[in-house]
Amino acid sequence: MVADEIPGFWAVVPAGGAGTRLWPLSRSRSPKFLHDLTGSGRTLLEQTADRLSPLVGDRVLVVTGEAHRDAVRAQLHTLPEDAVLAEPSARDSMAAIGLAAAVLERREAEVMGSFAADHVIGDVEAFSRTVADAVAAAREGWLVTIGIEPTFASSAFGYIHQGDALEGHPGVRRVVEFVEKPSVPVAEEYLATGRYRWNAGMFVVRPTVLLDLLAEQDPAFAATLRAIAAEPDRLAELWDTLPRIAIDHAVAEPAATAGKVATVPGGFGWDDVGDFDSLATLLGADEKCTVLGEESLTHLIGATGIVVPGSGRVVAVIGLDDVVVVDTPDALLVTTRARAQEVKNIVAALKDQGRTDLT
Amino acid sequence: MVADEIPGFWAVVPAGGAGTRLWPLSRSRSPKFLHDLTGSGRTLLEQTADRLSPLVGDRVLVVTGEAHRDAVRAQLHTLPEDAVLAEPSARDSMAAIGLAAAVLERREAEVMGSFAADHVIGDVEAFSRTVADAVAAAREGWLVTIGIEPTFASSAFGYIHQGDALEGHPGVRRVVEFVEKPSVPVAEEYLATGRYRWNAGMFVVRPTVLLDLLAEQDPAFAATLRAIAAEPDRLAELWDTLPRIAIDHAVAEPAATAGKVATVPGGFGWDDVGDFDSLATLLGADEKCTVLGEESLTHLIGATGIVVPGSGRVVAVIGLDDVVVVDTPDALLVTTRARAQEVKNIVAALKDQGRTDLT
Repeated sequence: MVADEIPGFWAVVPAGGAGTRLWPLSRSRSPKFLHDLTGSGRTLLEQTADRLSPLVGDRVLVVTGEAHRDAVRAQLHTLPEDAVLAEPSARDSMAAIGLAAAVLERREAEVMGSFAADHVIGDVEAFSRTVADAVAAAREGWLVTIGIEPTFASSAFGYIHQGDALEGHPGVRRVVEFVEKPSVPVAEEYLATGRYRWNAGMFVVRPTVLLDLLAEQDPAFAATLRAIAAEPDRLAELWDTLPRIAIDHAVAEPAATAGKVATVPGGFGWDDVGDFDSLATLLGADEKCTVLGEESLTHLIGATGIVVPGSGRVVAVIGLDDVVVVDTPDALLVTTRARAQEVKNIVAALKDQGRTDLT
Repeated sequence: MVADEIPGFWAVVPAGGAGTRLWPLSRSRSPKFLHDLTGSGRTLLEQTADRLSPLVGDRVLVVTGEAHRDAVRAQLHTLPEDAVLAEPSARDSMAAIGLAAAVLERREAEVMGSFAADHVIGDVEAFSRTVADAVAAAREGWLVTIGIEPTFASSAFGYIHQGDALEGHPGVRRVVEFVEKPSVPVAEEYLATGRYRWNAGMFVVRPTVLLDLLAEQDPAFAATLRAIAAEPDRLAELWDTLPRIAIDHAVAEPAATAGKVATVPGGFGWDDVGDFDSLATLLGADEKCTVLGEESLTHLIGATGIVVPGSGRVVAVIGLDDVVVVDTPDALLVTTRARAQEVKNIVAALKDQGRTDLT
């Protein structure tokens, strides 16, 4: 079943972040959203657009860095030319999503939903139903966040503490507060209560509500975003004056304190593909060795984990459990799923050496 | 101190074997003796020639496959052109060393010593003294083998069971028998007796003695070798009629039974670099991660073992102990030192696939 289009609803797709923990696949000049990390034949960005298209048609705004504008347009070539907003520099999520809100306010969009370009979702139908519920609440003025059902006590995500159901919206709950990434024991306590959800940064809201909430905290910030939307030629001049702040801190947390945030619990199989360990889980490598790429290039004997033959060379792996082998034309990574987080340290070391060609 | 030249003594260097357990460094068309496996700047073949040259000057005969003749000549370009004998096909060590013996018999060499092209020796001075002792005994008609002092109970080598000292040669002992590769417990028993040595296939003998010992077992074999030496043009015609047999079985074992074999115990640090585990030990990787090649290409975090950055690409390794990572332009190997023996299975699988380009 294809989901019904939701009238007046726009999708905003922030496409940023280098994904350094997925090096050497993901690079500054070729970040993870541009890659097919699931072996589906579609990149994460393309999958994101595919998932949203039934809900919004071509009412999509992608916000990305200027360096990636052409690559994004090439991957989303069926969208209108003005569907891609290019940021002159990276200024965190409030500026990116806020600019989209200001542009959509002028286009008289009723509701917008922000969905990152580099997340993976398993059950697209359940996702669509969740978004529809979120849009219904957002039409009434709520800032609505989608609360992902936690599958384990992760210390890698922030959590949403949910309260009572919203009147007239049985599937929607008030948000008591957002909490920062907890320790694993604290996360276990959260899970035991059944009242905490992962914060995946998916916000559904009327553009004007979002900008007005921002204006309550930082009037100049909201005014500047609206000024850019009114006069796009002033983007380059005004952009660098914007604060670098996440939308969570700038708007969502204060709004939750003020009782203006709601959440729709979502159980549709979500992954932010943070590192090769989570990618391995996503691809089913817990039981076997998963090959992301041309399987005929690999020779595996007694190996489990994830192998990415990405240079055309033969890759042989013998006798290693939970291994991560990523072969690219100019760099090779060998590590374990347990140490996959430390890949970012390699990227930092290469940057220190001035190897911008590799990072 | 440079060792004294030994008059009338010739070195024979069998340069054969693909070294499949050192894949992807070692290949059929580029076997391990052509590689600098110790990071010394000299290949194993060059190191072998360097080690023998003080003892023999340019009285060297290398026996290699026709496919490697040019590469061997290039590496040993200071030797006379007739220093390299090319075998039309591989017919095991008796044919290779026997042909050298027949050629040297005609050149009136007094004594020959056979030393493989792909072994590594730590203490060259001690090696030279051992060879000199062996030559002295060989002049009296003994087939002399050098018995390597075992450093552990290896099940990868055959052993030499040594008996009493030879009269007039305090450093030389009679050989009771050669024994095949034992199990580790049996090897432990051998070591406990103090009377067993590793058989490294180093034979020192008068050419005529060797050929006559062969003739006792297989008169036609010896006669054919002498015929080829007399008429080198008949090599191609006669070579393929020779039996495929190791010198140990063809000559050394029956001669030991007949009481005609002596051994000189050698304690000079010997390694046949059989696989990446032994290479790692040789290069001191027991304590750290050894890099064979351009160290600046590697980024290692919490890794021990051996890393070979052989393609010019950056190689990052995180959180793996006793790992083996071998990066070449067309093939990559990732395994552990404990599983290093199984590399030959990868080579077999590639051969089954017809990937002669990679094997």
